[in-house]
Amino acid sequence: MDIYEALRTRRTVREFKPDLVTDESLGKLLSAARWSPSSRNQQPWRFIVIRDRDTLVKMGETAGSGGFLARAPLAIAIVMDNADQPLMDAGRALQQMELVAWSEGMGTCYVTLTDDQRATIADVLGIPEGPFLVTVIPFGYRHDDFQGRGVPRKPVSELVYAETYGSPFAG
Amino acid sequence: MDIYEALRTRRTVREFKPDLVTDESLGKLLSAARWSPSSRNQQPWRFIVIRDRDTLVKMGETAGSGGFLARAPLAIAIVMDNADQPLMDAGRALQQMELVAWSEGMGTCYVTLTDDQRATIADVLGIPEGPFLVTVIPFGYRHDDFQGRGVPRKPVSELVYAETYGSPFAG
Repeated sequence: MDIYEALRTRRTVREFKPDLVTDESLGKLLSAARWSPSSRNQQPWRFIVIRDRDTLVKMGETAGSGGFLARAPLAIAIVMDNADQPLMDAGRALQQMELVAWSEGMGTCYVTLTDDQRATIADVLGIPEGPFLVTVIPFGYRHDDFQGRGVPRKPVSELVYAETYGSPFAG
Repeated sequence: MDIYEALRTRRTVREFKPDLVTDESLGKLLSAARWSPSSRNQQPWRFIVIRDRDTLVKMGETAGSGGFLARAPLAIAIVMDNADQPLMDAGRALQQMELVAWSEGMGTCYVTLTDDQRATIADVLGIPEGPFLVTVIPFGYRHDDFQGRGVPRKPVSELVYAETYGSPFAG
């Protein structure tokens, strides 16, 4: 899929087909993650591939608004180990995965974890002291009748300035 | 450009053609940024488009290792206003811009700012108290003879685990 088309059509997906994610699609997701840039090329991410149903259900039960994790065939935990810029680098890898997922007919939705939820899930995943679990992201194929809700965007005039903060951008 | 090709071929670019970035390319960059997902759809980014040569030079002189800012025809400041997850959301928008830039024949390089550099540049850009300047990212077209240095990636065995932290991933 064309990159520009991918980012214009991408929608948040919370319900997935039960089909397992193919090795080819999973390989592309992991390549997208690994090929993401990182601060000083530290490559400080660790990705845990989770397909075990019990683990997915346990995480879904823990994750509050991220209950859809329990109904995904796959989740990938993003763990940052000794990173200069853990959240920035995690966000960049996540976005590469999200765009590739979309182009592969899949989808995902970001899961925000509270500190308590994070600690419980880190325990389930056997993450030792030190590495930081950012989040766990579900992946699965979209239903055939998936209709993404278009999320309205703020107008350019509100989001984009020219030269200095607050100055109108004319294009 | 195909999304998967874009993320596999993308390289860091620090030297740019002097050509101005076209309105069409700039429009795509800003769309890529605006169409990025954000926590609770807050859309908490503000993007400052900087093409003024004096400002670019001043920022390059301030930014330490980001001196290449002074030699770019365009920079975009990413400012987060009242965001739940400022660095995650900034990273996601940045990565969408970076991939579109690459597909448009442009390139960019992340600029890490110290707190002092950040304060100086925020002042140059007239950013008031409150909104947080994450960074300023240069954009420009790649030279015709640009040869991206392939940055080696750690092996899958080091970055990817199966089911629990540290467990080998077999694919």
